[in-house]
Amino acid sequence: MSFKLIYKNKNTKERAGVLKTAHGDVLTPCFVPVGTLATIKTLSSEEVKACGAAMIMTNAYHLYLRPGRDILEKSKGLHNFMSWDGPIMTDSGGYQIFSLAALKKIKNGGVEFTSHIDGSKHFLTAEDIIEFQSILGSDIMMPLDECLHYPASRSDAEDSLRTTFDWAKRSKAAKMKNGRQSAHQLLFGIIQGSTYRDLRKCAAEEIVGVGFDGYAIGGVAVGEPQDLMHEITEHTADLLPEDKIRYLMGVGTPLDMLGAISEGIDLFDCVVPTRNGRNGQAFTWDGELQLRNAPFKYDFRPIDERCDCHACSNYTRAYIRHLFNTEEILGLRLVSLHNIYFYVKLIEISRKAIIENRFQKFREEFEGRYNNRG
Amino acid sequence: MSFKLIYKNKNTKERAGVLKTAHGDVLTPCFVPVGTLATIKTLSSEEVKACGAAMIMTNAYHLYLRPGRDILEKSKGLHNFMSWDGPIMTDSGGYQIFSLAALKKIKNGGVEFTSHIDGSKHFLTAEDIIEFQSILGSDIMMPLDECLHYPASRSDAEDSLRTTFDWAKRSKAAKMKNGRQSAHQLLFGIIQGSTYRDLRKCAAEEIVGVGFDGYAIGGVAVGEPQDLMHEITEHTADLLPEDKIRYLMGVGTPLDMLGAISEGIDLFDCVVPTRNGRNGQAFTWDGELQLRNAPFKYDFRPIDERCDCHACSNYTRAYIRHLFNTEEILGLRLVSLHNIYFYVKLIEISRKAIIENRFQKFREEFEGRYNNRG
Repeated sequence: MSFKLIYKNKNTKERAGVLKTAHGDVLTPCFVPVGTLATIKTLSSEEVKACGAAMIMTNAYHLYLRPGRDILEKSKGLHNFMSWDGPIMTDSGGYQIFSLAALKKIKNGGVEFTSHIDGSKHFLTAEDIIEFQSILGSDIMMPLDECLHYPASRSDAEDSLRTTFDWAKRSKAAKMKNGRQSAHQLLFGIIQGSTYRDLRKCAAEEIVGVGFDGYAIGGVAVGEPQDLMHEITEHTADLLPEDKIRYLMGVGTPLDMLGAISEGIDLFDCVVPTRNGRNGQAFTWDGELQLRNAPFKYDFRPIDERCDCHACSNYTRAYIRHLFNTEEILGLRLVSLHNIYFYVKLIEISRKAIIENRFQKFREEFEGRYNNRG
Repeated sequence: MSFKLIYKNKNTKERAGVLKTAHGDVLTPCFVPVGTLATIKTLSSEEVKACGAAMIMTNAYHLYLRPGRDILEKSKGLHNFMSWDGPIMTDSGGYQIFSLAALKKIKNGGVEFTSHIDGSKHFLTAEDIIEFQSILGSDIMMPLDECLHYPASRSDAEDSLRTTFDWAKRSKAAKMKNGRQSAHQLLFGIIQGSTYRDLRKCAAEEIVGVGFDGYAIGGVAVGEPQDLMHEITEHTADLLPEDKIRYLMGVGTPLDMLGAISEGIDLFDCVVPTRNGRNGQAFTWDGELQLRNAPFKYDFRPIDERCDCHACSNYTRAYIRHLFNTEEILGLRLVSLHNIYFYVKLIEISRKAIIENRFQKFREEFEGRYNNRG
């Protein structure tokens, strides 16, 4: 068993656990920074590690296009390539194929698409994507799936579920066929079903029936209202086996993550800390700050006085505002670094609170302060 | 005396020394990385320090426009503002006023110009620029000067020398008038005179006659042929007192720096390692590499196998090429970092060779290998 549940209160849903991977243990709940193109944007692997991140996420679709299979094969996988010796998850890139690539078409157990980079034509089966992730050597592979945007019609959601289920079975078979080469890699199943509770139930039964090392909830945070996102997350998490890790794809803000922990989620990945960081938005224990704004002109405090990240230990809001004003790259770096540190720390502290059976109190206090009601 | 000559061979011109500043000693010869806007582009202050850089350079004109005087005053100077506790030189920005600002006009002991950022009108006297540098709290201040591009007519060069000499005297007087506030700051004199040997001689006599803590050779590397640059540098260096530090402004490539050391130069500043680094050009002991080029696609060696900088210890040419291909910021960082480290190391090793009386042999070997003749 790759996942071990360490603590679960009887009356609430938050959980603490440990996931064993080929590159080390991951304590859960855990926030996983996203490095789509084999780099957490603006940061070095050493900086991400120094932030306390246990695991990172990259994207098979993007890496298939650039740098491409041959370079990753010759570099003996992604860990070597990007100089990250901890666990790596690889998203299949299904979401990106459907959102970025042009002229995509589902056929023959896979998807035909034209690259968003150069318009070149590609056809990849569910099996191809598993094989590519085995070349990447990621610790956790994701199967190809179809992720619909919100709102989706019931019939689209049903069609999409059939495709996703077919690909899930093919992916598992491809992994088994890979034998020893993929033996150290975990494969998660993805539960789709849009906002239809009965379709989510049906998808969970089917995917869990096939049997995977962990389960991902996909197709949330795709445009639906926040309440509905949490409702669907909780509903779907409730359908999953307790002894397997649960991964909520692409979520989210600090408040969303604490909400999802309360709904029984163990893993999160999200581009928000780096994407918003590059835009000057910092996450702090006192809420969100837009550091480009005028009030920070003469503010010689660190981004967050409670934070001991590298950026907060050395630089002020006024300096970072100057860096953004002058389009200096160090500004993007410092806020991205702080945000990753903050996300990792928030989930670490949440884990401690779970184990000490005071998570709901912690969450309430955090939210009060974060929303400036504290 | 702020400068002490440690070693000088009788038959050659290379020198080793120590410059004492308010923020620590600088061993010379020394390469000074340029952080125009209070950041060495793409790098943190800690990274620049870890590269071994003893001193950095910023630019008064740029900092006067952004972040502006009030922020720098409130932050109690540049060292605090940018979190750099070593020595800082500040260029007056004369060169930038004449090259970047529009509608500049010399009048009333100063220069009127419109900002290259927003077109706003400004008038700064030589005294204003000293006063601003005293607010910056730099360890070495430079006076306002006029730097002509090559080629310059003799009459333009003569006019320009008169202006520069007038500003030099006013700058020194302004510094003296500042009293205790600037007592810990060194002020250098700048020798101009374009490519006219007699004007250089005249300028050196006048400027040295006024008396400064060190002497800068300006108006080289402004478009003239390389041979002429070295001829003028050597000619001008020969005119300077042996017991004062000599600073060659804005130079240069590794080969230019070793040449200038042979001509008796102690200090260099140059944007080349970072500017070219952001373009994918790496400096190595085996010459220059353009890492975006196809031959590096499958090259899993570090940028330079002889280098132990952070980039070379952790990342490969193939990975860095991928980062440039995908416009990922980490690529700019890694090559900038390596280049700064290489420049600092090259001059450090040159210093050791000078002290051990084998600099010319070292230079010859370096050049052979650098030009791939070694």
